[in-house]
Amino acid sequence: MPTYRFRIEYDGTDFYGWQIQEDVPTVQQAVQDALTTALGRPVTIYGSGRTDSGVHARGQVAHFHLDQSVDTYRLKAALNGILPPTVAVSDVQTAPEGFHARFHARRRRYHYYVSTQPVAIERKQRVYILPPTPDFKLMNKAARSLVGTKNFKSFCRTNTGVTDYICTVKCAQWVPDAGPGDWRFEVVANRYLHGMVRAIVGTLLEVGKKERSADNFSRLIDAQDRLMAGPSAPAEGLILEKVYY
Amino acid sequence: MPTYRFRIEYDGTDFYGWQIQEDVPTVQQAVQDALTTALGRPVTIYGSGRTDSGVHARGQVAHFHLDQSVDTYRLKAALNGILPPTVAVSDVQTAPEGFHARFHARRRRYHYYVSTQPVAIERKQRVYILPPTPDFKLMNKAARSLVGTKNFKSFCRTNTGVTDYICTVKCAQWVPDAGPGDWRFEVVANRYLHGMVRAIVGTLLEVGKKERSADNFSRLIDAQDRLMAGPSAPAEGLILEKVYY
Repeated sequence: MPTYRFRIEYDGTDFYGWQIQEDVPTVQQAVQDALTTALGRPVTIYGSGRTDSGVHARGQVAHFHLDQSVDTYRLKAALNGILPPTVAVSDVQTAPEGFHARFHARRRRYHYYVSTQPVAIERKQRVYILPPTPDFKLMNKAARSLVGTKNFKSFCRTNTGVTDYICTVKCAQWVPDAGPGDWRFEVVANRYLHGMVRAIVGTLLEVGKKERSADNFSRLIDAQDRLMAGPSAPAEGLILEKVYY
Repeated sequence: MPTYRFRIEYDGTDFYGWQIQEDVPTVQQAVQDALTTALGRPVTIYGSGRTDSGVHARGQVAHFHLDQSVDTYRLKAALNGILPPTVAVSDVQTAPEGFHARFHARRRRYHYYVSTQPVAIERKQRVYILPPTPDFKLMNKAARSLVGTKNFKSFCRTNTGVTDYICTVKCAQWVPDAGPGDWRFEVVANRYLHGMVRAIVGTLLEVGKKERSADNFSRLIDAQDRLMAGPSAPAEGLILEKVYY
């Protein structure tokens, strides 16, 4: 039974996140529907992980099984012809037997985009506009304390049923993006807790606005208490950039 | 008479370029109209340079004169409330007396975005999708011959009335962009001829597809003949990233 893997790019603005839910549009549903139409039989796809409502992806990865081989090039073309214009599928390829998009993912890279300047509408739903300019140097000082294998309960949405809060963060830093006033927060980790990146970004922005010190941020991780962290940054700035296997 | 300067970001998809023309929407017209509404009197703005129909900007700069001082913060807010959603104004500030957005610009940075993969619609009008993957290494070898003070007539639209074809290119290179299959061509020069960046990109893509050698590209510059260069790359991938003063 051949396994196929592919990358998915989407603008999450009009979706209720990745995972299928009843009666609302989700990315997983859109891609499964397109596959079912293209192949003429129902198919289940497995993503590398969920993204929340309004969060985007440039490099989501999913896999599915088929009982017979297909021409991947033609399948990609067919899918992109069927999919809504805010979703695109690329790099459809045969995967090794037993490949699983979620369980075999080693790391995931998210970017969170902010701008201190007004931006034209096409970028507006992909970037979080900050009225005042925060102190990115301070935010990077604080962000350094995120790197390592730690308990990130302080940045996990409460009442999720999760019991393992340990994640390994490989990289966490703010870097200037291309345009004036544009910055992005880059984070690479083996896994993420519910709402973790947006909670980290929201709390780092408090550091940048001098409402919280970098030391406090570092102690906050040790506290393992979500109530001590800051508010979540909005979904529109976040994008699942890449999944590493 | 105070002079003001500001940055303008726009998605050029629905505009006939920067410069005012009769009966068609242009960015300059949109901004002048918004300024006229905000200030209650007609204002003329001067941009750092024209952008073609469909070309975008993240860092266009313009200036205008007023016969009295205004609160720049409130003016910026008023403008962004009036402007169409595909145009945003940022960083409104008082300029030194005599400042001119075009004549005082030292360098302009353009980026040209391509992708070898299908992309979701929000990026589709900002990136040129390449069906085959070109050889970016070869393209960079060719691009090196662009750097320097040279006659770029080979990359200038014909019959423009321009007589001075000398430009100084500071940097010209292809670099990987954030997502899989995404690349951008970065070019910084003191000035550009009509259609120059798009002609360069279109011709470099021929090198990347092995339809033209890097040596031929280098000789093409010396030939000073537009007919020997390749076709222009489409407008949607091009953005005026930054103007340096």
